Amino acid sequence: MSEKIKQIEQEFTAYVQKMSAYNEALSLVYWDLRTGAPKKSVEQRSQVIGTLSQEVFKMSTSEEMASYIANLTTGAAKEVISEITRKTAEHCKKEYDRNKKIPAEEYKEYVILQSKAESVWEEAKDASDFELFRPYLEKLVETNKRFITYWGYEENKYDTLLDMYEPGITVEILDRVFGDLREKIIPLVKAISESDNKPETSFLFEHFPKEKQRDFSLNILEQMGYDFQAGRLDETVHPFAIGLNPGDVRVTTKYDEKDFRVAVFGTIHEGGHALYEQNISKDLVGTPLCTGTSMGIHESQSLFYENFVGRNYAFWKQNYELLKSYSNGQFAQVSVDDYYRGINESKPSLIRIEADELTYPLHIIIRYEIEKGLFNDEIEVKDLPQIWNEKYEEYLGVTPDSDANGVLQDVHWSGGSFGYFPSYALGYMYAAQFKNTMQKDLPNYDQLLEEGNLLPIKEWLTKNIHQFGSLKKPLEILTDVTGEGLNAQYLVDYLYDKYSKVYSLNI
Amino acid sequence: MSEKIKQIEQEFTAYVQKMSAYNEALSLVYWDLRTGAPKKSVEQRSQVIGTLSQEVFKMSTSEEMASYIANLTTGAAKEVISEITRKTAEHCKKEYDRNKKIPAEEYKEYVILQSKAESVWEEAKDASDFELFRPYLEKLVETNKRFITYWGYEENKYDTLLDMYEPGITVEILDRVFGDLREKIIPLVKAISESDNKPETSFLFEHFPKEKQRDFSLNILEQMGYDFQAGRLDETVHPFAIGLNPGDVRVTTKYDEKDFRVAVFGTIHEGGHALYEQNISKDLVGTPLCTGTSMGIHESQSLFYENFVGRNYAFWKQNYELLKSYSNGQFAQVSVDDYYRGINESKPSLIRIEADELTYPLHIIIRYEIEKGLFNDEIEVKDLPQIWNEKYEEYLGVTPDSDANGVLQDVHWSGGSFGYFPSYALGYMYAAQFKNTMQKDLPNYDQLLEEGNLLPIKEWLTKNIHQFGSLKKPLEILTDVTGEGLNAQYLVDYLYDKYSKVYSLNI
Repeated sequence: MSEKIKQIEQEFTAYVQKMSAYNEALSLVYWDLRTGAPKKSVEQRSQVIGTLSQEVFKMSTSEEMASYIANLTTGAAKEVISEITRKTAEHCKKEYDRNKKIPAEEYKEYVILQSKAESVWEEAKDASDFELFRPYLEKLVETNKRFITYWGYEENKYDTLLDMYEPGITVEILDRVFGDLREKIIPLVKAISESDNKPETSFLFEHFPKEKQRDFSLNILEQMGYDFQAGRLDETVHPFAIGLNPGDVRVTTKYDEKDFRVAVFGTIHEGGHALYEQNISKDLVGTPLCTGTSMGIHESQSLFYENFVGRNYAFWKQNYELLKSYSNGQFAQVSVDDYYRGINESKPSLIRIEADELTYPLHIIIRYEIEKGLFNDEIEVKDLPQIWNEKYEEYLGVTPDSDANGVLQDVHWSGGSFGYFPSYALGYMYAAQFKNTMQKDLPNYDQLLEEGNLLPIKEWLTKNIHQFGSLKKPLEILTDVTGEGLNAQYLVDYLYDKYSKVYSLNI
Repeated sequence: MSEKIKQIEQEFTAYVQKMSAYNEALSLVYWDLRTGAPKKSVEQRSQVIGTLSQEVFKMSTSEEMASYIANLTTGAAKEVISEITRKTAEHCKKEYDRNKKIPAEEYKEYVILQSKAESVWEEAKDASDFELFRPYLEKLVETNKRFITYWGYEENKYDTLLDMYEPGITVEILDRVFGDLREKIIPLVKAISESDNKPETSFLFEHFPKEKQRDFSLNILEQMGYDFQAGRLDETVHPFAIGLNPGDVRVTTKYDEKDFRVAVFGTIHEGGHALYEQNISKDLVGTPLCTGTSMGIHESQSLFYENFVGRNYAFWKQNYELLKSYSNGQFAQVSVDDYYRGINESKPSLIRIEADELTYPLHIIIRYEIEKGLFNDEIEVKDLPQIWNEKYEEYLGVTPDSDANGVLQDVHWSGGSFGYFPSYALGYMYAAQFKNTMQKDLPNYDQLLEEGNLLPIKEWLTKNIHQFGSLKKPLEILTDVTGEGLNAQYLVDYLYDKYSKVYSLNI
């Protein structure tokens, strides 16, 4: 018996290795398309993407896969196979169930709907007219509701969607932590809005040559411990990091010569994602576990570097002179204290992706509340623009002047990605909670930054988070590392501490 | 009946499209590995190459493929299916037969032998010791001889090897044309060696910054009509051009700051390959016919541009000032006539890849004569160093000082590539023969070059050669275009005309 299971384990390992190889080829195709593939390559390259994706999908839903799952997820098998095989089989089972439960014909229709909806959304956004997009959004919501009945749910229908991006996270948890966050952040935002003590920022927007931004960004990536033997930095339109395998994790960025922050903080952010993928245990290579465990935990790594390293005062005490030396002199009259205040300005705004680190969670909470309402039949699609605008006024004190700057601003819904937005704020809370624990292990955290010695930070994250890839679930990591469940208070404390200093508030 | 065939044709088309998609992904992986993939990516990327190659091989030798071939290569089927399907099926049949005729076990052993032999060859070359490599080369020759008996042959065993790279070319043809070439070139090389009127070349070797070489190379590619919307130029160690599909044909080059000719003539050469692949008819996309028809015809396109454009006097009348403007002043005291003579110096040398356009064919003829002798049991591997050195003395008047600079200089044999070398000289003869015909259609050829108007040349090559991809066999193209079979005289005439002028010879 156990001999036979061992044999099946071996075959299964080869089977998932083959899927990994196809996925790695797909990742290279995506990276290439987004960094420099010639324009005319695209038409035929789509065929390549189609062929490889279809093959991966077929393999993930094949009879052969069903048989591996049946054989390897039994109690008896678990005694015999390795932990990696067991978790790989569980991972494959989840995907198999999800894909198999939707009738093929309905899934095909949905794919067509997604692709149409995305192009209609673009038009609607350009015309700033929600009514154009409404019928498509209605259909997308309706279809996902039907899919939820196929997939099944326990407490709340929306939980089934959350589970795709952040396994273990539920409406119950989010209501609690987002409630805490909202309650604490809104008064802080208000206090800042009313403050007279606003930072000067005009010096940020002077001409900073692209090549110099690139050189500075490379220097920071190096400091972070990004391994250039296992990666590279390229330019793109919508920056991303992508792990082909732990030996090849590529960062991309974009350069705005009138705002160096786009490249610098963007590269630090993507560099945080990249460190995660570079430092996954080699034991997981060739399995579907060889990537970050969830959207939220991934985002926790990028936000950790972007905010707790890149927007930290001690970091700039070390790096401000370096930044100055690459610039054309825009900081000549600016002290490091004023520079630090400038890059940490907080101001309520309409657009999520331009938001600062304090107001950002409110943008996410608004989307969460709307999605939850939609899937629990408490909100109708037709009312979205009004609800959106009311919530922006209530939470942020700003009212969108148009649908383009309001409910139509994000691409996510047009692709049917419901349940994705919470990951962004979850990542931020995870990061703050990790930071709190790290500070106990590295009590000289700020001093390390001031000395430009970022490696102990990378080592801590690798030991506690990176190495495990998807071997542990998000909340498992959080609890193992911090000793408690998700707690919004760490983020709240960080924000109060930081912003009361930046704005000299007494709250 | 004809309905059923049509149905099979459709399925076969989808089948080869899938193979093409895998091959396109493989090409991207190769390009990436050779232009900037991080070092640590390689180990896992090899798995990707292995997986995809194996899949393509499986598909090319599957039962399903056998059935397509059986159904689509009958007389009845040919009446019903398109010309493209017919030729695709013939192409697949040839590959199927070739792969199926070797027992799997023997092929596996051979692959292992190749990989060992290549690393031993590297060692042997470093140590300049043929004896290290000899046993491996003996085994490679022996195995290929056995494979020839599996594959079968008609006139000459070596024909079966030639057919892999240059279908239709035989020992009979090569003996004739290489005989003509050898007989005519040797006296010309001798006359030049004895000439007192040697060109000055020292000005070639001054510092020419890499970025400037790149800018100049891009300018020339643009003039040639290379489509940058369907390609890009990157840096590499061993330059190549690669067609992923006609909308994505990438050129690579390398820069030697002490010899600008490496990049400039290298880019023109690879640009010639790239124009071929960019201008294949869109109808062939997704089939194995969507690439150059043979090594030799491909080389004819690169050599056409390198020699008949890039080393032409009229071309430099147009471009010399431009070159000067990119350089650091190394040509300030050099007239265009002296420059032209400098870049056309001819001098017998030991190393094939460093040879000039006159002596180059002799390097190839030596290799051809040796390979033919090996496969017809007229030469033994153990005698190669001696035979090699004698031939170099006889044909070129130089004797290798070591095996490294002699019989061990090329990688080809260590990979078992016998029958490949002749393609290089064939390409050169094809090019000269095409040029002779083109001159009739474009009697103002030199004037076009002098005006920097290279597009009519590209259009002529596209109309007569490029568009057909592999729809036509090499000799079919040659005959269709020039109205006659392979004739070495055109190359001989070109070389005599050119070199008697460059060296002011009276022959």
